[in-house]
Amino acid sequence: MLVDVLGFVGIVAFAASGALIGVRKRLDLFGVCVVGITTGIGGGIIRDVLLGIHPPTSLDQWPNLTVALVTSLIVFLAHPVMNRIWRGVLLLDAFGMGLFASTGATIALASGGSSLSACLIGATTAVAGGVIRDMLVNEVPLLLRRDLYAVPALLGSTVVAVVEGSGLPGDIGLVVGTVAATGLRVLALWRRWNLPIARRLPAADEL
Amino acid sequence: MLVDVLGFVGIVAFAASGALIGVRKRLDLFGVCVVGITTGIGGGIIRDVLLGIHPPTSLDQWPNLTVALVTSLIVFLAHPVMNRIWRGVLLLDAFGMGLFASTGATIALASGGSSLSACLIGATTAVAGGVIRDMLVNEVPLLLRRDLYAVPALLGSTVVAVVEGSGLPGDIGLVVGTVAATGLRVLALWRRWNLPIARRLPAADEL
Amino acid sequence: MLVDVLGFVGIVAFAASGALIGVRKRLDLFGVCVVGITTGIGGGIIRDVLLGIHPPTSLDQWPNLTVALVTSLIVFLAHPVMNRIWRGVLLLDAFGMGLFASTGATIALASGGSSLSACLIGATTAVAGGVIRDMLVNEVPLLLRRDLYAVPALLGSTVVAVVEGSGLPGDIGLVVGTVAATGLRVLALWRRWNLPIARRLPAADEL
Repeated sequence: MLVDVLGFVGIVAFAASGALIGVRKRLDLFGVCVVGITTGIGGGIIRDVLLGIHPPTSLDQWPNLTVALVTSLIVFLAHPVMNRIWRGVLLLDAFGMGLFASTGATIALASGGSSLSACLIGATTAVAGGVIRDMLVNEVPLLLRRDLYAVPALLGSTVVAVVEGSGLPGDIGLVVGTVAATGLRVLALWRRWNLPIARRLPAADEL
Repeated sequence: MLVDVLGFVGIVAFAASGALIGVRKRLDLFGVCVVGITTGIGGGIIRDVLLGIHPPTSLDQWPNLTVALVTSLIVFLAHPVMNRIWRGVLLLDAFGMGLFASTGATIALASGGSSLSACLIGATTAVAGGVIRDMLVNEVPLLLRRDLYAVPALLGSTVVAVVEGSGLPGDIGLVVGTVAATGLRVLALWRRWNLPIARRLPAADEL
Repeated sequence: MLVDVLGFVGIVAFAASGALIGVRKRLDLFGVCVVGITTGIGGGIIRDVLLGIHPPTSLDQWPNLTVALVTSLIVFLAHPVMNRIWRGVLLLDAFGMGLFASTGATIALASGGSSLSACLIGATTAVAGGVIRDMLVNEVPLLLRRDLYAVPALLGSTVVAVVEGSGLPGDIGLVVGTVAATGLRVLALWRRWNLPIARRLPAADEL
């Protein structure tokens, strides 16, 4: 029950970030909703496709979609306010990312996947929505350009896989994984941590 | 039988729109065929992946692929003519969209999906080909920028789900859904209907 | 056993091409690894999704991922050297493409797919990694713009399907398909073969 509520918070944060970018890209009402909904539920759909859960839960049942749609509509109407609380959206997004990484890993293990697939599919669940969002609006995914984002997601899903492997109750993994992923992400935002970029190329030789 | 023929008409329209954009983007013969084929059969492939139909029908059997390929070749050779009949292509495309939305919803229901999944997967079938087309040629999907396109698709698939839920024969849903979706799309094209865009942002603050 | 080793060579070549483009696009360490890994194992993941193999092998077991990750790290550190051996990378890439086309077709047949699905899914396995790579870094896929690339992939997978259909041992198809695809690709690179582009449009009429 608590997990469901937390999951909705994650969807709200992701959908809000997607809808806000849609507004900034001058999309129409429907486009804003499509980008918002895709960002909010896209990670879960890809997780279900990879795990063979047909049809994907977010397409088969109402709650996730409704939450993402309502969030997108609110952003469309109230986006100037959203800009002012952008820092709060980033924190929500960090929390949503941590939670999706942990629940994605848990679902992968429950579907009979290996520990590796729990790590990778959990992290994919957490980052895929944002990648789809950026590709839809024709930008190089933020994930690839800067920001320590996917590393915290991998940390969260790995914690879940390790806790599960050690025989402890799965709920502990869910909590610790979410806290670890969210915490590292917030730290990275706060301290402006970034991973290194390769040295500049000696010449602009063509590919 | 009739449904099959109509399905081919839809694939022809979608493949033609994809191949025509490929020509305009100066792609080579193969690239034009790839964009044309992907636009023509991509929606059905994504539908099958979401529903767990392996391998997807359009990859497993000849007819759909052949129709899309021949259409792409004809466009490659005869594209100046296609430009002149662009309005006709748009009408065909509207009809293809309506038909794909309705058949997609029907197939989702037949695979045991919920009414919601019929609405969403039907509409996805109808619009996914065009989204893939636009992403392949590196444009923000037309779907997101302007044009009332996905709303008619949702209308068509919803009609199918409602008719099925009410116990009427599925063929009625297929016909009414296709007519409703195609009609709304043609109306939107004719009257140049568009959905609203959010008010301009007060400042170009960065993300 | 030999097939496994050859498969790793293909992953090395694909991951190297992806990571090198990531470096050129000024991505950070993680972005370079993500593009490298996605290019190296993306084709196989899409193949498994299309065939209903859940979770995809490359996400479920260590070897493929490890090979792609180590390759990406080496490219990140040593990319100036990679630029000098770019011609060698292209040859490796041609070989990887041929091998992926043949093994993809073999796996599709083993999963109960038709000959057509073996041709198409084999070729998809060979080219999908590169398409994902180009879309991630926001370029029109190289595949669509120039270079005879997908035609050799189709040749390789078709050879496998024909050999299998004729009742000969599958290993022969694997070898002949790989050699045919790689050979045609190398020939195309060497002779700078390209497919034709449609005549220039008479006017810049809008879509």
